[in-house]
Amino acid sequence: MFFASDNGGPAHPRVMQALLDANAGYASGYGADPIMEQVRADIRTLFEAPSAEVFLVATGTAANALALGTLCMPWQTVFCAPMSHINEDECNAPEFFTGGAKLTLVDTEQARMTPDALRHAIDAEETRGVHGPQRGPVSITQVTEKGTVHTCAQIAALSAVANDYGLKVHLDGARFANALVALDCTPAEMTWKAGVDVVCFGGTKNGLLGVEAVVFFDPADAATFALRRKRGAHLFSKHRYLSAQMQAYLADDLWLDMARAANAAGQRLLRGLRQMPDVQVLFDPAANLLFFDAPRATHARALAGGAQYYVMGGDPHTGPDGEMLTGRLVCDWSCPDESVDGLLDLLRG
Amino acid sequence: MFFASDNGGPAHPRVMQALLDANAGYASGYGADPIMEQVRADIRTLFEAPSAEVFLVATGTAANALALGTLCMPWQTVFCAPMSHINEDECNAPEFFTGGAKLTLVDTEQARMTPDALRHAIDAEETRGVHGPQRGPVSITQVTEKGTVHTCAQIAALSAVANDYGLKVHLDGARFANALVALDCTPAEMTWKAGVDVVCFGGTKNGLLGVEAVVFFDPADAATFALRRKRGAHLFSKHRYLSAQMQAYLADDLWLDMARAANAAGQRLLRGLRQMPDVQVLFDPAANLLFFDAPRATHARALAGGAQYYVMGGDPHTGPDGEMLTGRLVCDWSCPDESVDGLLDLLRG
Amino acid sequence: MFFASDNGGPAHPRVMQALLDANAGYASGYGADPIMEQVRADIRTLFEAPSAEVFLVATGTAANALALGTLCMPWQTVFCAPMSHINEDECNAPEFFTGGAKLTLVDTEQARMTPDALRHAIDAEETRGVHGPQRGPVSITQVTEKGTVHTCAQIAALSAVANDYGLKVHLDGARFANALVALDCTPAEMTWKAGVDVVCFGGTKNGLLGVEAVVFFDPADAATFALRRKRGAHLFSKHRYLSAQMQAYLADDLWLDMARAANAAGQRLLRGLRQMPDVQVLFDPAANLLFFDAPRATHARALAGGAQYYVMGGDPHTGPDGEMLTGRLVCDWSCPDESVDGLLDLLRG
Amino acid sequence: MFFASDNGGPAHPRVMQALLDANAGYASGYGADPIMEQVRADIRTLFEAPSAEVFLVATGTAANALALGTLCMPWQTVFCAPMSHINEDECNAPEFFTGGAKLTLVDTEQARMTPDALRHAIDAEETRGVHGPQRGPVSITQVTEKGTVHTCAQIAALSAVANDYGLKVHLDGARFANALVALDCTPAEMTWKAGVDVVCFGGTKNGLLGVEAVVFFDPADAATFALRRKRGAHLFSKHRYLSAQMQAYLADDLWLDMARAANAAGQRLLRGLRQMPDVQVLFDPAANLLFFDAPRATHARALAGGAQYYVMGGDPHTGPDGEMLTGRLVCDWSCPDESVDGLLDLLRG
Repeated sequence: MFFASDNGGPAHPRVMQALLDANAGYASGYGADPIMEQVRADIRTLFEAPSAEVFLVATGTAANALALGTLCMPWQTVFCAPMSHINEDECNAPEFFTGGAKLTLVDTEQARMTPDALRHAIDAEETRGVHGPQRGPVSITQVTEKGTVHTCAQIAALSAVANDYGLKVHLDGARFANALVALDCTPAEMTWKAGVDVVCFGGTKNGLLGVEAVVFFDPADAATFALRRKRGAHLFSKHRYLSAQMQAYLADDLWLDMARAANAAGQRLLRGLRQMPDVQVLFDPAANLLFFDAPRATHARALAGGAQYYVMGGDPHTGPDGEMLTGRLVCDWSCPDESVDGLLDLLRG
Repeated sequence: MFFASDNGGPAHPRVMQALLDANAGYASGYGADPIMEQVRADIRTLFEAPSAEVFLVATGTAANALALGTLCMPWQTVFCAPMSHINEDECNAPEFFTGGAKLTLVDTEQARMTPDALRHAIDAEETRGVHGPQRGPVSITQVTEKGTVHTCAQIAALSAVANDYGLKVHLDGARFANALVALDCTPAEMTWKAGVDVVCFGGTKNGLLGVEAVVFFDPADAATFALRRKRGAHLFSKHRYLSAQMQAYLADDLWLDMARAANAAGQRLLRGLRQMPDVQVLFDPAANLLFFDAPRATHARALAGGAQYYVMGGDPHTGPDGEMLTGRLVCDWSCPDESVDGLLDLLRG
Repeated sequence: MFFASDNGGPAHPRVMQALLDANAGYASGYGADPIMEQVRADIRTLFEAPSAEVFLVATGTAANALALGTLCMPWQTVFCAPMSHINEDECNAPEFFTGGAKLTLVDTEQARMTPDALRHAIDAEETRGVHGPQRGPVSITQVTEKGTVHTCAQIAALSAVANDYGLKVHLDGARFANALVALDCTPAEMTWKAGVDVVCFGGTKNGLLGVEAVVFFDPADAATFALRRKRGAHLFSKHRYLSAQMQAYLADDLWLDMARAANAAGQRLLRGLRQMPDVQVLFDPAANLLFFDAPRATHARALAGGAQYYVMGGDPHTGPDGEMLTGRLVCDWSCPDESVDGLLDLLRG
Repeated sequence: MFFASDNGGPAHPRVMQALLDANAGYASGYGADPIMEQVRADIRTLFEAPSAEVFLVATGTAANALALGTLCMPWQTVFCAPMSHINEDECNAPEFFTGGAKLTLVDTEQARMTPDALRHAIDAEETRGVHGPQRGPVSITQVTEKGTVHTCAQIAALSAVANDYGLKVHLDGARFANALVALDCTPAEMTWKAGVDVVCFGGTKNGLLGVEAVVFFDPADAATFALRRKRGAHLFSKHRYLSAQMQAYLADDLWLDMARAANAAGQRLLRGLRQMPDVQVLFDPAANLLFFDAPRATHARALAGGAQYYVMGGDPHTGPDGEMLTGRLVCDWSCPDESVDGLLDLLRG
């Protein structure tokens, strides 16, 4: 009953097999391996973007920070949601890789920036000539950090605001696959057709050991990425082991199958939670990540019963039984129905 | 009728004379001049802080950014007010000089962070181990950017919160003198006795050509400042011209006299504005800086009559006459009563 | 006949098996996995350093740049050899991760800094107070980038110079294992007993997919490393896949066996080359990396015959046959005798 | 008898008068003052460069570091002389303002990089794809740090090499005026006609209190300078005091007169030194800065007699009398013949 993170479960066996397959003989390093050639082609096809520039890195923070570093000058500010991973969970990596840019936090509904709030935030910057931060890219997370999903139209609406000011759009797609299957749309529809300039196409949270693709739809935007990646120490000499993971991920829609499994587990959880009278589901979970309020005693019972997940807002073991605390549940591709049902049983008491 | 800024007026004649006096013969550079020796002693005496470390720089942004760079690691975040100069008016200089630290914006009342909001903001950081930004120093502006003044007790209350978490306190004192005379307290009371660790003791806005002192009350905090100043290209070879300004500033309480004059002009303005039925004074101006709402036509009339000040919220010349726009007025030491009364006359119509 | 790099060959099957073994069930991320606990203990035992701090990253550049960032302030300079990887092959990553420190290049013999040259270089810095770069750590590469090996005494002699000035010592051990078996000494003798403060203990070039351990012998030196690693986007969520590689590496001395195999291939090559009249071996190759001068026609013949290695100093296919060009040969653990003999046959003609 | 630096003497009285004149009434800040308008026009005329972009800063290090930051990406390297101020005397400010670029040291003759050495150094970089530092701008100092002067043809020859690789050329003109009068050429001839892209046109060492102009001949090169200057905290609010200094500097060729006076003193010194049998003049001093070797006892006598200058290579007061130590002498505009002759008398004994 592991719901602490979608980075806690195993990699998919086909991914492991791909590693074994790639481990034969000699290969050129640093992305010049033949598997990477195939990956580039596959991703361009997948995104219907024949001229896209594609790079692999091994962590989601590297993908985001390098992508933002490429789009954002040090004197600019990135517009993003307060709960965005780049703001809360990357220990100032975006600031580091941009050379000291700022993040301007934009008001949200359901963890999604609203176009009006975004416009307001952009309007409020760059009103003082050289004195204030200059306007930089807009960063959207899909699936959001609170488990909600932007529709393609919602992404397009945010991009349209960015576009009004000539600003680029970055999509943190650490859970790209989970959003895609939730929306049942194409990668192109969820990205460049909706105005996205660069997407971090995550694999680590969805069954890989650790690979993210950074995809720039306009090659001009990618001009400095390769140098930034090397300078950031994120270029792998034995790159084939990244390439092989991504190749297996895309082959036969494994990535979609894994995301569907994770989302199905998440939605099964959601249905169960919604039937519990003393539980309050927060936000509007559309994929594999959800938050809920429950009495302390309920959390304590679940944790004591072997469930693993984060409880926020207080110590689940100390304090009044009835105080409401927030639990965070994440399902990965490998989450079995028995775990979901087991957790629901524990929460029901 | 110049009210656009307290950096638009002349330097005081005694400051100019000090420059002339300092311009005789040869002097060691880089802060080793004899006048600087005197300035160090004077500032230590003034602040009742015999072991304080004292440095001069030429701009307020340099003072703030270097002081914060010295106190704040790149993976930390500075707690400050949203309208703080370091957030809005320094083009990411704090981010640059800290090597990529973040600024966490704290809710305010009357442009002053409240202790509760500060505690809440600090509590919300560093809850995720190495993943999130780490807690860094608290930065307070005195006079605030909206013209209000913290009492010494208010500063002490914020410092007490910082102290609960082991965080240092920075005071942006670009208008230190104006606050001091408004409070009628001592420099020590407004700084280290209230828990401040480093103060940027401003002179540029109060009659100097361009000098700010950075004063660290604990020499250990200043350990890297001299190297950071040089690396930031803020160490002057002909340092005596900075020293001489500061010496004249402090001599015979010139700095206090100038601040008193500026505040008197500001308060004279305030009294006049408060008597106008269609004008709304914003915040609670306690020094030489004030904001007020007035109908567009009122602003247009004043500007047309020769008044110089900033109008925010819309074009003062285009739009409905009755729409309320915000004016910002700043008085410097040289502001004559005739200017104040002239502006009031124009606003009255 | 692949001699282009020791990062071109396969990972060892036992390393692959360890990945498969680690891929079962759920595990905590970010280094809190139980395998990492074991790795930490194993490395402390291996280095006879019970209080050492141990971190894993995935690239050699990350290991070096983060280690140097931890030891070196932005206003300091790192003393290193001109041909050092940190100077020539990391696209300014050390400058990036230190926040803008400098590298001071020290004269070498056989690609090893000499103590006299190091002392001279250190003496030449920090003679101008705050104006010049300040003295920072000394960085030694073992095996050197030219294939030579420092004796433990040579490392100790360099450390002694560093120590005279209170400077820390960093060892870039990308080929640590190859040096160790060449010297037949212990890890402790080659590091902290010889004055090394932090070692980048490489695995990527010696049979892993991509893992390097950064080992600080004094925990105080490591105080900021974990935050720097996260901020640099080098902390892996699914850290167990790094841990598992390192665990297999150390188990049953696999790492030493692989290094012995690589060195044996290198020395077999060396013996063969030394018997060729028109070939000149450069430096004094002691491990698995060697450089040699040969006529263009010799290189052209070898490359045409299927050998893969880098030729420097000119195009091996265009120009006078007899012109001497430099070849660089690297053997990894998997290099078969047949490849070595095949290359030698080709070079002999 | 002050020869320690050309930043130790007084500012010229006409510069002081200009400050007094500028100190009347109110003025817009941040470079929008009317005097700056005039300065921009004057400098464009002076350099025969009607579209040049002109900025003022207060320190030479700021001028150099901001100019290089504007021309050089963080993953590039600046080609410069080992003894260049940017390498030895700016505490890593160029590294800081470029975001972590490197400096590649080029061999010199008479402290001037030779075109061959420059070409060799450029050739040696960027031979490893993304792995090594990328080629960045070439930086030339005029007058060199050793007192020699490049002819315009020598500057042009270096620029030609840079141009072959598409690299920009920066001229550190901290002693621009002294070189110009030594060469008796025009500012255009010594800069853009010789291939220079940006010049730091120094005033601080030549009779100002502290002002340097950064002049970009191609406005496109200057695109980010204004933001970098503000972010670096080098934009002055009371900018008129910088403008006024520069205006006075240029008026009636004051700058040239001061440089002529300084050079005349330097050359008078040189003639005297060359007649002393036990003194060896180093390099080929062409302006106001010179180095000479003399026995320790000679230095000790001069210093005891009241001369002020730096002695390098040993303590002038302790050691064998006959050991040769190096003295460094700098003359500023105000250096009287009596001082020169007094020093010569002391040295003669």
